[in-house]
Amino acid sequence: MTKILIVGGVAGGASAAARARRLSEEAEIIMFERGPFVSFANCGLPYHIGGDITDRSKLLLQTPESFLARFNVDVRVMNEVISIDKQSKFVTVRNLVDGNEYSESYDFLLLSPGAAPFVPAIPGIDNPLTHTLRNIPDMDRIIKTIQMNKPEHATVVGGGFIGLEMMEAFHQLGISTTLIEMADQVMTPVDKEMAGFAHAEIKQRGVDLRLSAALESVEYIPNKHIADQNAGESNEHQHLQGKLRLTLNNGDAIDTDMLIMSIGVRPENTLAQNTGLQLGAFGGISVNEHLQTSDPYIYAVGDAVEDPDFITGKPSFVPLAGPANRQGRMAADNMLGRKESYQGTQGTAIVKIFDLAVASVGKNEKTLKRDNIAYEKVYVHTASHAGYYPGSEIVSLKLLFSPETGKILGAQAAGKDGIDKRIDVLAVAQRAGMTVEQLQHLELTYAPPFGSAKDVINQAAFVANNILKGDATPIHFDEIDHLSDNQLLLDVRNPGELKNVGFINGAINIPVDQLRQRMEELPKDKEIIIYCQVGLRGNVAYRQLVNNGYKAKNLIGGYRTYKFAQA
Amino acid sequence: MTKILIVGGVAGGASAAARARRLSEEAEIIMFERGPFVSFANCGLPYHIGGDITDRSKLLLQTPESFLARFNVDVRVMNEVISIDKQSKFVTVRNLVDGNEYSESYDFLLLSPGAAPFVPAIPGIDNPLTHTLRNIPDMDRIIKTIQMNKPEHATVVGGGFIGLEMMEAFHQLGISTTLIEMADQVMTPVDKEMAGFAHAEIKQRGVDLRLSAALESVEYIPNKHIADQNAGESNEHQHLQGKLRLTLNNGDAIDTDMLIMSIGVRPENTLAQNTGLQLGAFGGISVNEHLQTSDPYIYAVGDAVEDPDFITGKPSFVPLAGPANRQGRMAADNMLGRKESYQGTQGTAIVKIFDLAVASVGKNEKTLKRDNIAYEKVYVHTASHAGYYPGSEIVSLKLLFSPETGKILGAQAAGKDGIDKRIDVLAVAQRAGMTVEQLQHLELTYAPPFGSAKDVINQAAFVANNILKGDATPIHFDEIDHLSDNQLLLDVRNPGELKNVGFINGAINIPVDQLRQRMEELPKDKEIIIYCQVGLRGNVAYRQLVNNGYKAKNLIGGYRTYKFAQA
Repeated sequence: MTKILIVGGVAGGASAAARARRLSEEAEIIMFERGPFVSFANCGLPYHIGGDITDRSKLLLQTPESFLARFNVDVRVMNEVISIDKQSKFVTVRNLVDGNEYSESYDFLLLSPGAAPFVPAIPGIDNPLTHTLRNIPDMDRIIKTIQMNKPEHATVVGGGFIGLEMMEAFHQLGISTTLIEMADQVMTPVDKEMAGFAHAEIKQRGVDLRLSAALESVEYIPNKHIADQNAGESNEHQHLQGKLRLTLNNGDAIDTDMLIMSIGVRPENTLAQNTGLQLGAFGGISVNEHLQTSDPYIYAVGDAVEDPDFITGKPSFVPLAGPANRQGRMAADNMLGRKESYQGTQGTAIVKIFDLAVASVGKNEKTLKRDNIAYEKVYVHTASHAGYYPGSEIVSLKLLFSPETGKILGAQAAGKDGIDKRIDVLAVAQRAGMTVEQLQHLELTYAPPFGSAKDVINQAAFVANNILKGDATPIHFDEIDHLSDNQLLLDVRNPGELKNVGFINGAINIPVDQLRQRMEELPKDKEIIIYCQVGLRGNVAYRQLVNNGYKAKNLIGGYRTYKFAQA
Repeated sequence: MTKILIVGGVAGGASAAARARRLSEEAEIIMFERGPFVSFANCGLPYHIGGDITDRSKLLLQTPESFLARFNVDVRVMNEVISIDKQSKFVTVRNLVDGNEYSESYDFLLLSPGAAPFVPAIPGIDNPLTHTLRNIPDMDRIIKTIQMNKPEHATVVGGGFIGLEMMEAFHQLGISTTLIEMADQVMTPVDKEMAGFAHAEIKQRGVDLRLSAALESVEYIPNKHIADQNAGESNEHQHLQGKLRLTLNNGDAIDTDMLIMSIGVRPENTLAQNTGLQLGAFGGISVNEHLQTSDPYIYAVGDAVEDPDFITGKPSFVPLAGPANRQGRMAADNMLGRKESYQGTQGTAIVKIFDLAVASVGKNEKTLKRDNIAYEKVYVHTASHAGYYPGSEIVSLKLLFSPETGKILGAQAAGKDGIDKRIDVLAVAQRAGMTVEQLQHLELTYAPPFGSAKDVINQAAFVANNILKGDATPIHFDEIDHLSDNQLLLDVRNPGELKNVGFINGAINIPVDQLRQRMEELPKDKEIIIYCQVGLRGNVAYRQLVNNGYKAKNLIGGYRTYKFAQA
């Protein structure tokens, strides 16, 4: 009889427990969770705070009782594994309710402790109005603070997934919100010009977005006046009343009623470290492809481990729910005698920002540069479904690929419809090792309410292949402001478009449909830098000019890419 | 200078013309279209009739003038190519406006004539109230008939894409509608049990659905009475007034005000046939991988050709817009000296039926059986995104795969959210040659508004792999009504579910969470046929029973698959 102990009862741990039981009726399975809840919907927490998910109980997917009834798993909440004796194969557990300690032996141990919000040691950060959000008690505290303190203004530090979702939650509750991000963009998995779509949406909603700014100090100012007025109410209420004065590294000061710290998470590695298990460069637990730690009887999964990057194979720290769940299942397989291999993490991710979705897969330009991987890129902006059918929205897609092999290195997309679908398509294609040549042939669902006969993905592949075959010479948005005297900027849109959506300074305007007639207006000794709105007409103009002996380049993604890069 | 003639100015022809010009400024390109319009949105026609697309001009994507201005293509509408001299490489063209005939020589000729609605020679079918829908003039006639005749009842014959869309258009206009289909299901690309979701939606909307019924005769009854009353109105109005009496092969009679014939399309092969070009078994023009017909100077694309099936490589007739557009582009490449290869048609397709989407890719069970290809299948019914986030809907997915290689043979899905995405994911995976083993590892976008940590696709892959590895013994919905005395049907849902959604006659009920305690109620000498609502709890129960020495099978897709198969 195999005895399996599991540390952590959420995504990876709970998946492992259920799978282990399905594989074996005999195994003894004990799952320890130091918090009061197991298997809760951690990704749903911001949406309950914001009011989208009205029923709190919907976040509690399983209870210790339901786990016992269905899977015969001994779930021990409020029980923390405080040490591991890997030689003798037992753990010491502290019951957090009564403080008692006891030990449990194991045949296999699974570590699924997750990752914890990182809060830097900023002066004054430890105050009753500052919160992080990781679990149900955190959420409950935030809700209580909102209910009791009725904040008029909230501040979120960190523009990642949780930060963006909390920003939206506050906005939805009618609370005026400031979002502070140290980088020059939110949502670091995408590149800055793609984050521009998010910046535009955030600003348009009236959120006070502060990029390239860091929180330097926090001053907690209890509100004596109100506390005195409400003398009849509970101490806690009086305690909560008050304000925060935030000071940023750029000298700005912000008065706020509530602060959420969401600059990122760090792997929970204390137990592993104390046990002498190998850790990686990011502090995550190192595991092999079978999800074994440096001790073959101890497995680890989820946000606490370092996963091999799908492209480079190198360890990376990508704390996401999908890999955690699948790894949990796989670890159970392997603990019970199978030999499953984890096949790398692409980091596929998506976030909703008001009506916008921003998503990505694989590597971005920043990480490709950092890892010295050669890449080419294209941008397309194409309707999410047939433009003549109601409800279509622009899908803005960036596709990164290898100029040598044509393989997909990464993709990013932003828009109000069909973003998840396009990144999913590219996530599958990347995992399958497809090239941009093969992407051209993809046969995706098409009817006017759902897509286009030539989908966004096909279009991106056409552009990529034009570049690879030398049928197009690209120029990118960040080169446009640095043209030389030997280059001439040509806008091939209609004059009405220039007037309505703007244009790039210094461009001359010849609409594409007049170009054949007016070609002699252009100099043959200069390089013509062509742009249109999204790059499509630019390509038509490019082909005309080049086939008529001109030197030319086409701005990939057109004016739309150029403009949102500045948002 | 290459001279290219193109027959047909819609999807394939128009794509080819534009691409050819982008490749060469010198080529002479003439596009003949016997109708009055080029490059119109044929897939949008039903939606303009139904009122979703209010502006008719949105359907006209290009005009001869716009084609000339942008692409320098000589577009000749109302000009029909009536014969081809492939020896001397010229065509004879009839100007349909003045009846004059003339000839044009070519270096390369592209045939993109499309496919025409097939109307069988049913007695009385030729009457002013019976229509087909292929192009703008057809649409205009249907709209005029509706406006002038104000039908209270319309009948659609044929439950394919156009038939279903016209059914919805009539319903949307408040016209009571009958849909007649000869087969025992609508939407033949999916299997009957998956079409059940469509049948339920259609009936629920109040459409009179007649399956396994064929139109046998039509009687046109002009309405003299009304015609006399309206003597002051135009002849045409009087002419349109009237009714149809339809007789079906089952003896039923239907009185209707309007009839749409949409039982299918046939390739326009007359010109190719008269030219002596090779045709295939389905009547489509035969082409090689470079889209050349049996004459190397004549290419053909789109709905008029037979495409190689992606799985078998055999010629098939799959008239869809996506392949047509991509083939047109490729034919232009090849006519201008490149060597692109068409890589087979998966037949990816989707249709909207009221709020429901039904989609498919690859082969279905019917065609797998016909072609003697070994297959296994799974059904899953899983939330389109995290169930605790508002707006999630059930995705019902059928996945067909090879029991030998694990490769994806086909997939079908139905539901109100995320159907296009799941079939797109599987379309990419199939084209990439992925196996169901690999599908387990797919890393798809997840945040509560968009997906689940274990997506529908991962879940389907888990079930498929359980079967391939012997971890699950499946039984399918169509075997349940034919159990033997040595089998015992076990419903593991909660009693409340049986009461609310129904159950299968003869089943005993032990909820899965009580199974460990009550296992001795089950006989070890019989095979236990387990079912739950969708198959998930059934699997948990199956594993318990098998690991305790019972013989068991689990109903894949559960009661939901069983129930909708009968809809």
